[in-house]
Amino acid sequence: MFIEIENLLGPPALARLAEIGAKAKFVDGRVSNPHNPTKKNLQIDTADPLYQESMQIVGNALLTNEEVRNFAFIQRLAPPLMCKYTPAMTYGRHSDSAFLPMAPAPLRSDLSCTVFLAAPETYEGGELTIYLGSKPVTIKGNAGAAILYPSTTIHEVVPVRKGERLVSITFIQSQINDERQRDLLYTLNEVAALEGNTMAWENRVRLELVRQSLHRMWST
Amino acid sequence: MFIEIENLLGPPALARLAEIGAKAKFVDGRVSNPHNPTKKNLQIDTADPLYQESMQIVGNALLTNEEVRNFAFIQRLAPPLMCKYTPAMTYGRHSDSAFLPMAPAPLRSDLSCTVFLAAPETYEGGELTIYLGSKPVTIKGNAGAAILYPSTTIHEVVPVRKGERLVSITFIQSQINDERQRDLLYTLNEVAALEGNTMAWENRVRLELVRQSLHRMWST
Amino acid sequence: MFIEIENLLGPPALARLAEIGAKAKFVDGRVSNPHNPTKKNLQIDTADPLYQESMQIVGNALLTNEEVRNFAFIQRLAPPLMCKYTPAMTYGRHSDSAFLPMAPAPLRSDLSCTVFLAAPETYEGGELTIYLGSKPVTIKGNAGAAILYPSTTIHEVVPVRKGERLVSITFIQSQINDERQRDLLYTLNEVAALEGNTMAWENRVRLELVRQSLHRMWST
Amino acid sequence: MFIEIENLLGPPALARLAEIGAKAKFVDGRVSNPHNPTKKNLQIDTADPLYQESMQIVGNALLTNEEVRNFAFIQRLAPPLMCKYTPAMTYGRHSDSAFLPMAPAPLRSDLSCTVFLAAPETYEGGELTIYLGSKPVTIKGNAGAAILYPSTTIHEVVPVRKGERLVSITFIQSQINDERQRDLLYTLNEVAALEGNTMAWENRVRLELVRQSLHRMWST
Amino acid sequence: MFIEIENLLGPPALARLAEIGAKAKFVDGRVSNPHNPTKKNLQIDTADPLYQESMQIVGNALLTNEEVRNFAFIQRLAPPLMCKYTPAMTYGRHSDSAFLPMAPAPLRSDLSCTVFLAAPETYEGGELTIYLGSKPVTIKGNAGAAILYPSTTIHEVVPVRKGERLVSITFIQSQINDERQRDLLYTLNEVAALEGNTMAWENRVRLELVRQSLHRMWST
Amino acid sequence: MFIEIENLLGPPALARLAEIGAKAKFVDGRVSNPHNPTKKNLQIDTADPLYQESMQIVGNALLTNEEVRNFAFIQRLAPPLMCKYTPAMTYGRHSDSAFLPMAPAPLRSDLSCTVFLAAPETYEGGELTIYLGSKPVTIKGNAGAAILYPSTTIHEVVPVRKGERLVSITFIQSQINDERQRDLLYTLNEVAALEGNTMAWENRVRLELVRQSLHRMWST
Repeated sequence: MFIEIENLLGPPALARLAEIGAKAKFVDGRVSNPHNPTKKNLQIDTADPLYQESMQIVGNALLTNEEVRNFAFIQRLAPPLMCKYTPAMTYGRHSDSAFLPMAPAPLRSDLSCTVFLAAPETYEGGELTIYLGSKPVTIKGNAGAAILYPSTTIHEVVPVRKGERLVSITFIQSQINDERQRDLLYTLNEVAALEGNTMAWENRVRLELVRQSLHRMWST
Repeated sequence: MFIEIENLLGPPALARLAEIGAKAKFVDGRVSNPHNPTKKNLQIDTADPLYQESMQIVGNALLTNEEVRNFAFIQRLAPPLMCKYTPAMTYGRHSDSAFLPMAPAPLRSDLSCTVFLAAPETYEGGELTIYLGSKPVTIKGNAGAAILYPSTTIHEVVPVRKGERLVSITFIQSQINDERQRDLLYTLNEVAALEGNTMAWENRVRLELVRQSLHRMWST
Repeated sequence: MFIEIENLLGPPALARLAEIGAKAKFVDGRVSNPHNPTKKNLQIDTADPLYQESMQIVGNALLTNEEVRNFAFIQRLAPPLMCKYTPAMTYGRHSDSAFLPMAPAPLRSDLSCTVFLAAPETYEGGELTIYLGSKPVTIKGNAGAAILYPSTTIHEVVPVRKGERLVSITFIQSQINDERQRDLLYTLNEVAALEGNTMAWENRVRLELVRQSLHRMWST
Repeated sequence: MFIEIENLLGPPALARLAEIGAKAKFVDGRVSNPHNPTKKNLQIDTADPLYQESMQIVGNALLTNEEVRNFAFIQRLAPPLMCKYTPAMTYGRHSDSAFLPMAPAPLRSDLSCTVFLAAPETYEGGELTIYLGSKPVTIKGNAGAAILYPSTTIHEVVPVRKGERLVSITFIQSQINDERQRDLLYTLNEVAALEGNTMAWENRVRLELVRQSLHRMWST
Repeated sequence: MFIEIENLLGPPALARLAEIGAKAKFVDGRVSNPHNPTKKNLQIDTADPLYQESMQIVGNALLTNEEVRNFAFIQRLAPPLMCKYTPAMTYGRHSDSAFLPMAPAPLRSDLSCTVFLAAPETYEGGELTIYLGSKPVTIKGNAGAAILYPSTTIHEVVPVRKGERLVSITFIQSQINDERQRDLLYTLNEVAALEGNTMAWENRVRLELVRQSLHRMWST
Repeated sequence: MFIEIENLLGPPALARLAEIGAKAKFVDGRVSNPHNPTKKNLQIDTADPLYQESMQIVGNALLTNEEVRNFAFIQRLAPPLMCKYTPAMTYGRHSDSAFLPMAPAPLRSDLSCTVFLAAPETYEGGELTIYLGSKPVTIKGNAGAAILYPSTTIHEVVPVRKGERLVSITFIQSQINDERQRDLLYTLNEVAALEGNTMAWENRVRLELVRQSLHRMWST
């Protein structure tokens, strides 16, 4: 299941991140995946102090966003990384690693997240394309929007043809490893949030029992 | 989880079963559990034609009762068996077998069921007592009432002191093997039945998705 | 995961099914889901002998198609049912039932299937739209094409605006209940089919061990 | 499964806790569940230094009690909290939350625990009532006794009619999330403890293999 | 886990099977695995009436042997097939298929079984060798002995150098799919059979509860 | 599944460990398993500073060995302990504990490891013997070799008859609790490492998806 958050970042955050995107040092994206010949992009140099700032802006926005928290059951969040695609840059079909090296323990990537930092009309190409078997899902969000999608897919960023695609990407370890279970509990929680107040108290208690029991049962 | 059905059997069925209890041949209960020294009761002779009749009356009542069906997710029902306890008869602490020999395949007993055929004031003692760790649950139902309880407990029938305890017992193989899963889906289904009609259509559809998905996921 | 089969049905089968679509009796789609107010379509009368013929044409095509078999690990197939949507007809958002009543035992619907019988240019609207959280996937196949998708989604057929949408729909119980497991084994089997012949024998044997072990482990 | 510990706390601990119950500041129980209209009780002010002392007395008693440890496979224990119910106070039907906010990570409540601090003859009403489907289990322990029960139930404290109900409550995260698995391993361990010494050595080793393997398999 | 049954077949059965091995028609073993280049052996022609007889002798011996039944929790048994290896014949490293085509439904092979029909001193080579990672286990049983081993291994029959290796092979679908679970329940059942009679009745009942509950929980 | 590592330790490490084996203080092996009457061996005194050194030599060798890491998916490693068996010493049949007391949390022993420190020709007897049901697997490695085997077996060290058996033993908590799952992922990873480079890129990506998804799904 996918979730798109329309306004994860507001104008001030976007403006500052655009500034960082222009000023910070960017290095070849291969540094973090040296063996992947399909990755041709740039990513912020993690030694540049602006990296820390960009990471905090995006990280805080994700950790405090209610839709994100409800959907993802966040346990840990990898530090968001700014990436830049100029014309002809691309990230070919690949699947994300199950575990990212991270202290104090590897982070299991259950959900992948792209935060769009540039307005879609400022660049051509660069769509995030996720393959669900023979069916592609294509995403090119507004500036400030985020998409969360399961890390268990094959996906790609198609080549940028014009302009610059600036994004921040990150990975979430969820309390709930299994996508199907996570999506069902999210859906049930949404129903309870929207309909619970008008239910007979006895039925609210029963629904609460089911929700809490599933949460307990499925958390890992 | 336990469920008590107050009026599984109406007066005519009860009257006929009382007659059968009085007329049919009963044999030593050890025939079906020869190695259990704690079983001291009588059970209807399965060679007696009245056995077939008693089995059908109780079996049909269970299979057509909506509460039973909602709670148990019945896949198969063992033929109900009439049992009689006269003074000093008892069935000491035991757990029920996982599988009952039955054509065309063994029946897995997920739920055990006792249908009470005699009014509780007509006999002393004979309570069904189910142990949940250090805590006993004691049941002595009205004539026509049934209790369904998980087959995964230690339980006993304490000695009858006076009068005659007449019951029909049976076992249910559920679509849902795991008790916790079965109880949660039952509870969620009850909430949907009682509250679904007043929900926004969109939320009914989402709740339906969760219910159907859990049913699919947990059926074995 | 989705799979689209481009040529499930060839021209003769399509021609015959178009004839059946024109000649057979169609009834209100509510007969099979009386409580769903969003279903407004027509379905072939199962009492019409042409129903049997249509069911066999589509059923045989699915059961003998290698892509379908590889993808779905078919255990049982529900009888395909022809449905017709004329202007203003629609089937609003819903999720499919976990179990369909069917002899000798209910059929668990793990995968849903739509076979397109009319050319897409002959009708307007009528897209099958599957919601993956906030992201819709839209499908309007060529005549003779089929789409298989998990029954665990919310989906709809948007209103037809012009022309006639003729489809055949059915449900598959898979050997592998869990979608994630089913998709992974399918993917691994595809890799083995395409790359196995050039592997060292020893590695083919190891890959075979993994494939057979997963198949054994995940079949229900 | 339930377990009642008769003498978790001895007379000196009980005397000191009674003193704390009389001297410490108590606040409205709603502070920890502001949205639950059925909770009408008092709980010790966690800012009062006596809270720390009460927490340590009860916490140590639980962590060092062999029956508790054998039954619960304690991984983490929430700080026990003293609660007071004066006449008309009650805590209506509810289920406990799956996770309690707690550093460094939320605590999953698998087992709920009530320690009784007042003699049952000193107050009327106030029974802890746990619903197992249609069957209530009622508990009113002696002073110093504790009850452990699965957090996956609907339960309530019925209104106190006279006197004062003083208890300490807490929650346990178990090594074994699933209640059924936890109860089976506890039962098998009890059998091994009571019968292992008289078994042939070879059979003890086999039983040990089963116990250790189940413990490994079921721990989360 | 492996189990060797020393005397599955007695002298009369062995004599009759030796006769069948000499008289029946044998065909190239590739008929049942046409794509496996490492299989070089002979197997009895299933069109020969002697095949039926051989199948019944070995099948009945397996189905009525208590050690086999206790160990394997047999649900279905594939028809045993006589195989012959003359000098230079071999069956290279392979893993067994998860499912065998069989009416009315494919048989899942959880356990593989070889019954040795020729005395080991009458042929050289021909050892059944099972690889557990880097560690081989080698088996050459006495005439009439059987070995059961998990179908989830890579194994081979090394080339026969002299004499004739005559065996009957078959596959078992167990009630318990998972090898680890099956082996643990078998081990616990053995302990109960050997030690149960001297236990306190209360502990026997508890051990019985654990055994029946595991059987129920793990059967598929 | 078993894995033997031929040269875990090189000559300098072996020489230093032999020195430690001669100089360090050794105590009765019963100190760590006081209730096991079958354990008759010596183990290094953990208060001796040489213990720390021996622990680091063996621990580092295991943590940096690629075969070990690929096979074991190490999450935590218990400190390796030197053990000495002089004539008549032995460690009778036993299974290893599921959990070892260790800060900050008990370590789950999924894999057991023996590192051989003495050349096999320098002592008689002392074989490590692992029982897989009725079938023993016997291991007596070269100096510097290691064996990893599942902790879920019954095993023993048979009596030493002559010379001195010097080993270092330890336990591994794996990312993957279940042996069957761990072995399948190891096998699939080996195939990918050996065959991935010659595959079509698209198939490598699909194989990568399967590997990462299984790793995610099975890690605990």
